Amino acid sequence: MGNAAIGCEADQELPDAIDLTHHLNVLSRSRHPSPLKDIIKFMGYDGMISLAGGLPHPSLFPIHDASFTVSDPGGSDSQSTIKLDNKGASSQLLSAFLQYGNCTGNGELRKWCLDFTRKIHKPAYKDYEIILHPGNTNAWSKVVGLLCEKGDYILCESYTYPSSQALWIPNGNLAAPIAMDEEGILDTALEEALATWEHVHPGTKRPHVLYLVSVGSNPTGVTMGTERRCRIYDICVKYDIIIVEDDPYYFIQYPDLSSTAESEPYRLLPNDDFVSSLVPSFLRFDRQGRVIRLESFSKTLAPGLRLGYFVANPRFTERLLRATEVETQDPSGLSQAVVLALLERWTTDGYVSWLQSLRLEYQRRRDCMVAAIRDNLDLVPASEFPDLRAQGLVAAVRAAEGSARIPVFSFVTPTGGMFIWTKFYFSQNPQYQALKRQGAESDPEQAFASMLWAQFAEELVLLTPGSYYHPWQGPDKTSTSARGADPDTSHFRLTFAMTTKEDMELGIKRLAGVIQKSWGAV
Amino acid sequence: MGNAAIGCEADQELPDAIDLTHHLNVLSRSRHPSPLKDIIKFMGYDGMISLAGGLPHPSLFPIHDASFTVSDPGGSDSQSTIKLDNKGASSQLLSAFLQYGNCTGNGELRKWCLDFTRKIHKPAYKDYEIILHPGNTNAWSKVVGLLCEKGDYILCESYTYPSSQALWIPNGNLAAPIAMDEEGILDTALEEALATWEHVHPGTKRPHVLYLVSVGSNPTGVTMGTERRCRIYDICVKYDIIIVEDDPYYFIQYPDLSSTAESEPYRLLPNDDFVSSLVPSFLRFDRQGRVIRLESFSKTLAPGLRLGYFVANPRFTERLLRATEVETQDPSGLSQAVVLALLERWTTDGYVSWLQSLRLEYQRRRDCMVAAIRDNLDLVPASEFPDLRAQGLVAAVRAAEGSARIPVFSFVTPTGGMFIWTKFYFSQNPQYQALKRQGAESDPEQAFASMLWAQFAEELVLLTPGSYYHPWQGPDKTSTSARGADPDTSHFRLTFAMTTKEDMELGIKRLAGVIQKSWGAV
Repeated sequence: MGNAAIGCEADQELPDAIDLTHHLNVLSRSRHPSPLKDIIKFMGYDGMISLAGGLPHPSLFPIHDASFTVSDPGGSDSQSTIKLDNKGASSQLLSAFLQYGNCTGNGELRKWCLDFTRKIHKPAYKDYEIILHPGNTNAWSKVVGLLCEKGDYILCESYTYPSSQALWIPNGNLAAPIAMDEEGILDTALEEALATWEHVHPGTKRPHVLYLVSVGSNPTGVTMGTERRCRIYDICVKYDIIIVEDDPYYFIQYPDLSSTAESEPYRLLPNDDFVSSLVPSFLRFDRQGRVIRLESFSKTLAPGLRLGYFVANPRFTERLLRATEVETQDPSGLSQAVVLALLERWTTDGYVSWLQSLRLEYQRRRDCMVAAIRDNLDLVPASEFPDLRAQGLVAAVRAAEGSARIPVFSFVTPTGGMFIWTKFYFSQNPQYQALKRQGAESDPEQAFASMLWAQFAEELVLLTPGSYYHPWQGPDKTSTSARGADPDTSHFRLTFAMTTKEDMELGIKRLAGVIQKSWGAV
Repeated sequence: MGNAAIGCEADQELPDAIDLTHHLNVLSRSRHPSPLKDIIKFMGYDGMISLAGGLPHPSLFPIHDASFTVSDPGGSDSQSTIKLDNKGASSQLLSAFLQYGNCTGNGELRKWCLDFTRKIHKPAYKDYEIILHPGNTNAWSKVVGLLCEKGDYILCESYTYPSSQALWIPNGNLAAPIAMDEEGILDTALEEALATWEHVHPGTKRPHVLYLVSVGSNPTGVTMGTERRCRIYDICVKYDIIIVEDDPYYFIQYPDLSSTAESEPYRLLPNDDFVSSLVPSFLRFDRQGRVIRLESFSKTLAPGLRLGYFVANPRFTERLLRATEVETQDPSGLSQAVVLALLERWTTDGYVSWLQSLRLEYQRRRDCMVAAIRDNLDLVPASEFPDLRAQGLVAAVRAAEGSARIPVFSFVTPTGGMFIWTKFYFSQNPQYQALKRQGAESDPEQAFASMLWAQFAEELVLLTPGSYYHPWQGPDKTSTSARGADPDTSHFRLTFAMTTKEDMELGIKRLAGVIQKSWGAV
């Protein structure tokens, strides 16, 4: 199922990207190259004196050198020092990182990212390129600015990352959500949505952009397997869809809970085995250049660096560069300098070791949260409640000693990322039943979810309301029934990334307490 | 003329900003606050355990401390070390800067910027706010995203910064350039453009945004004086215009060349005298909150930091924050951390001393370039060539020993910034005369300017073509005659910021050599 299962052709046998420039929106097509480009090529002439570029003089930068104490990779507590100064190769001088960049990002760092992409993701075409960006929020903003016109529908998961929507909702775009299971969006649902588009949405343009967090999806925590990816890629070829792979959690993929019951659940693997165990990126199938991969160092190093990179076909990166010139310029040079120095110190192998340790740490946290749920509620396979048609596990309570279990919420054990996505079942909750009987609420599910959320907060445990992740399909499709969601259900998202083990256990205990009280359980 | 000339009312007597939200464009009005805001206020509750926010755990950041060797302010060569670590106040922990921010930027740094703004710029209203941004390129992009609709005209200087235009040209916006003299745009020309707008541009919306680099303008190098600012502000009140003050060179203001002939032209002043000598920001007149000031550390510290801040009325900063949440998030935390530590080490007074040394260094460079022009060409007051109606100085050559001077280019000695903006006169150039006689070129001025630029480049001196700075008024207004520019003239921009003294002198010598040859001079 993993990365190793895919045969890898030698680079020289791979095709170049096909021309997909018909996907570019009017704004993006209208951008002109900076006229300064004409000048820059002359700057390299031997003996040229440039009175052209308006750069401040580097002798006037007040920062002269820097040193950082950094972790050594591989899970040990040992640390090293990395230094940035003005000795050495010109592309790696601190003063070069403190100067204006060329908007693609530092060449050495881009080269590192290109090599890493080749080694780890093995794209199925040849001429992909890298340009740096200041984090995936900005990267997605630039992709929408590249591809989407006002009013376009955007294909997405049936629960999707709210900030990605908050960008395009004011632009008049609408979500076209695709149904999911425990492996993410269903290829069958995607095919049906596209095949029937004109019939279901007469007079609208069929979507041409698919936005996916396909590893450890936010909020659902699910990861798409290899065969599903292959089928989805083929559908995207058939219907000419650009896949935007927002993939901050790629290296935070987990084995099933069951296998963590082994004697050494948190064992470091040989790096090659670790990489082989990961599901492949969509790049692995991308023989045409229709995947735009948004890579981020936010989850693997630190979000405050505001650093990541695009992997995309050269026609797209050229247009992204035009946008970068006028919208952001380079990411912070300090961030670039530190990350380059760190990655060069670590080497690719060291970085993979780091990622593996990171993965194990989050895996411990995931297991700790699931264990805390098991300690405080009855946790049973979803198959014990066939009426729910749920997947994964169900947390249940009993109204009385020895009485039947009442299902409260189900979840699929996360196979990546930082989140447990719980689906709550309200039908056996007395407060909810009363609320529904009153008939005063047009959306009793949402009303009760808000009440329950407030009860959790009063008991000092904060969850994220599931409503934040509803795809925006317009103002007439916000209620539980209008969205076509299961009646008497609602969702909450829990994260296991940020709290200590003790707080996680206490938080789940409080959660269970509120549930028991609300469901009238013993 | 300077900052001290303006009476300063006590803060408590100042008005709040008026409501200028009718300037917001549809996109900006349509942005919703992040729903996570509801959660964030609960996070502060005593004992709250948050399973809500999806932040990576700071124990997993690989950078543990950092130290930087930095200049001491005040023009000495002494240096100090600043350290970032995880000890001390929680808002200044390195790990806090490596974490996701709240999109306004670090609170301590914003407070520093607010205090600095109050002390230096003394805005004429009370409730202005600061939010950080990753450099003025992005800041201007966010301002256009805040205020401008497709097709809007934007008021600007008659020669304007090309990257600011490159952002909005693809959006269908057009420039409404305002004529300038040696103090920047003319208040009379602005008033006339606005008063006659409906008559001159029937069926179009009168512009409501004025984009200015009013100190050391790029490319013209001119700085707007106090009285001019006051009159322009009043016109902007009368016609309800938002002033966007893109001001990276504010602290790089120069006295006239003449005064540098004093015994100590590069003397450090007492800081108060230095600040008083600077022309006031438009904020100083802004009793209504209609100035959006774009502050940048790019020219005062280093561009690679990608850090600056907005000063604007609170209704605008709230909308800019909404855009920041979905378009960029915070600037790099490392950049924020270093700048905060540096400014706190230096104190405001030290920063002003730093700015003063910086100003003197660029002043030396400006004077060096003017001296190099004087050494290689005849440099005389423009009044000696009344027919040119030029301001400042004219560089001339002679066709023969003892013959009359032929004017080649004029320029106003820069009163700020990094650039000398030269206006070339082609009418007495034999090559140009021949080109014009052939009649094959629809725009002989531009054609000859390109030839001349190439001749400079062949002799290994690069200038920036003036055409880069022509305001974009549509495809039918690009030629010299269609723009209404003076016939037989064209511009080049020279910078004195980046080269060594020796290279600057050699570059100007090469420039003069090409000129002498081309103008048939001895």
